[in-house]
Amino acid sequence: MSLKKLILEKGKLAKESARKLAIVSTDLKNITLLKIADAIEKETNRILEANKKDFRNVQESNSISTAFIDRLTLTPNRIKQMAEGVREIVKLQDPVGEIFDMQKRPNGLMVGKMRVPLGVIGIIYESRPNVTVDAGCLCLKSGNVVILRGGSESINTNLALYNIMIRECESNGLPQGCMQFIETIEREAVSEMLKLTKYIDVIIPRGGKDLIEYVIKNTMIPVISHGSGNCHIYVDEQADLKMAEEIVYNAKVQRPGVCNAMETLLVHKEIANTFLPAIAKKLKEANVELRGCPITLRILSGIKKAVEDDWWTEYLDLILAIKVVDNIEEAVNHINHYGSSHSDAIVTENYTKVFKFLCEVDSAAVYVNASTRFTDGFEFGLGAEIGISTQKLHARGPMGIKELTTTKFIILGKGQIRI
Amino acid sequence: MSLKKLILEKGKLAKESARKLAIVSTDLKNITLLKIADAIEKETNRILEANKKDFRNVQESNSISTAFIDRLTLTPNRIKQMAEGVREIVKLQDPVGEIFDMQKRPNGLMVGKMRVPLGVIGIIYESRPNVTVDAGCLCLKSGNVVILRGGSESINTNLALYNIMIRECESNGLPQGCMQFIETIEREAVSEMLKLTKYIDVIIPRGGKDLIEYVIKNTMIPVISHGSGNCHIYVDEQADLKMAEEIVYNAKVQRPGVCNAMETLLVHKEIANTFLPAIAKKLKEANVELRGCPITLRILSGIKKAVEDDWWTEYLDLILAIKVVDNIEEAVNHINHYGSSHSDAIVTENYTKVFKFLCEVDSAAVYVNASTRFTDGFEFGLGAEIGISTQKLHARGPMGIKELTTTKFIILGKGQIRI
Repeated sequence: MSLKKLILEKGKLAKESARKLAIVSTDLKNITLLKIADAIEKETNRILEANKKDFRNVQESNSISTAFIDRLTLTPNRIKQMAEGVREIVKLQDPVGEIFDMQKRPNGLMVGKMRVPLGVIGIIYESRPNVTVDAGCLCLKSGNVVILRGGSESINTNLALYNIMIRECESNGLPQGCMQFIETIEREAVSEMLKLTKYIDVIIPRGGKDLIEYVIKNTMIPVISHGSGNCHIYVDEQADLKMAEEIVYNAKVQRPGVCNAMETLLVHKEIANTFLPAIAKKLKEANVELRGCPITLRILSGIKKAVEDDWWTEYLDLILAIKVVDNIEEAVNHINHYGSSHSDAIVTENYTKVFKFLCEVDSAAVYVNASTRFTDGFEFGLGAEIGISTQKLHARGPMGIKELTTTKFIILGKGQIRI
Repeated sequence: MSLKKLILEKGKLAKESARKLAIVSTDLKNITLLKIADAIEKETNRILEANKKDFRNVQESNSISTAFIDRLTLTPNRIKQMAEGVREIVKLQDPVGEIFDMQKRPNGLMVGKMRVPLGVIGIIYESRPNVTVDAGCLCLKSGNVVILRGGSESINTNLALYNIMIRECESNGLPQGCMQFIETIEREAVSEMLKLTKYIDVIIPRGGKDLIEYVIKNTMIPVISHGSGNCHIYVDEQADLKMAEEIVYNAKVQRPGVCNAMETLLVHKEIANTFLPAIAKKLKEANVELRGCPITLRILSGIKKAVEDDWWTEYLDLILAIKVVDNIEEAVNHINHYGSSHSDAIVTENYTKVFKFLCEVDSAAVYVNASTRFTDGFEFGLGAEIGISTQKLHARGPMGIKELTTTKFIILGKGQIRI
């Protein structure tokens, strides 16, 4: 079968299966998810073997970074965590079928909404095998058929995990083809997938900027995209400086490689002379490289100068850009101009400034007196997340299973006609 | 200034203005809207003159239909209705700033959502001048800056209406450039507009299929699209046949040219012999052309045969396709296969079938015992609508001003850091 035909057939089967999966009971979905979790643990060795195969293939290539190897490599403990993740999904409330906002219209019609799955979700991701299981099981719980297309470097691991999932789905009575996987590592498979306008309801690319741009440019299917995290903390003149120190330190140092870590620190000029030396000392002890605006350079000696590029950069590393600002307006403008609309925080005790910051900062998550590191489905109480959206349509911020659903209007009448 | 530069400047100004408009008080927006309504009525003659100019230009072209002329032409009464429409928008609750779903996390963080405008909305529409006012004022009320691009045939009318709106906006203290209009009728203006990824947050095309497809194909900006309405009514064997007659007649005849009118009637085989002759008599009296499946042809003599194409067609006319089905499964499958996911209804007294139809029909509006003609923002209690979405992301069904907003997470802490 040609590649084009193969992908088309997957799309057709997915659409058919989606109609059936949409009305499967929560109980049956949960039982299947528990079976998947058990099977993943039980078949740890088989998964590790597939992972070793991927590892060997990748080692032969020279262009691979250690961070990449780290993301690819599985251990018995990581596999156990995957299974635990699936059990967490079982605990989430099934959003499908919820009826809400019912209101009685003057003519007696009852009009409201019913929550339903999106249908078929295409997930295109790079080489983290845990996405195979996370995304597969989140889609299943929310009644969506998923078409998974993972990075070629982890093809063996992904396939081993997928085979467990689909086997448990079909042997427990879920509709045939209710999870799908693109086995071929040919790049054209992605472009064929992106043409399935009739069969895929939404595409979620998970990976770098290039992947996301490629997907948006090459499909007419709606896309939910996950941008980068150039996050800020603004320490106001009326901040509790001790609290500010802890928040800034945490947001930069606790896990610098993730999207909700702080990249630029903004400090009100009135407190810069006291606050900057104190926080700089702590950050330097943690090996953070500081890059400052001209005023910062006058206060902190021996640090690098921040150039225009620094304000735009998501370092994902132990580097911090620092800018002294005149007032909250300058801070808000800086964030809205240079930021990536991900997560930004103010530290202050002033009520009016809190409200101003909350209303005017145009980001997916706006914080008062807390570390930006909390932007995460679990921390927000949404459960496991399919990603963090920085776009404005449909879902913004951490996306849980509710964001994998849509609604339809339901209208209950007793013979009403329009006059 | 080049066209490219002109459109780019509009985009930049729109984005700047959007930050300011997002935090304008509801009172100021409402006062301005009332001034706009008054000015539209007061300047009726000036608007009519501009409309006559458009009318004369269009008359010189031969390819224009009477329906097109009807949509283009304004009368004092239609202008009065426009103004009334704006006053209705004043009455709608301002969705911006609403804080909801606040919950306390175990670590004491308060996490919830704040409703905010989308930002800048590009509206590309064909030649109905009322869209200029409707869309402009709905965007204003929801705190969004609109960039309007209307059809070239109504350019003079649109511009007259826009000039009134922007004059009232700016003279009442709203931010400069908070409503924008593309004055040039060159087609390239649209493609330049579709490139403003940095400045436009969402594009809403309002018009025919070709326009919508063109927009989706040519932009990386998220699009909310409004599909066609191939709507169905299924009359079940357990229907109240008198009620079914009235609903079917209403959905076909009351206003056949609109998207929520019925195009295909599905009838259970057990009642086809009694129901079809009765409804056919009424429909024929209203000059409805009937096209039937083979079984229908045996019951109703002298009607046309329905071909495969008929099941796919949105007639928007006094034509009805009729199919006799074996059971509710066949009806649901037919609707999900041939329908356009707009509005579909069942007429039955059977509870289990009601629930099955509500759950399994994959459409924006699913009806029980009522005419599909109610799919409309006002009828659903949402107020004026910006359109009816048949896509699944973000908004589905009639879109009111709430659907012109997004949310951001707000997180209130007291110094929490991530451990």
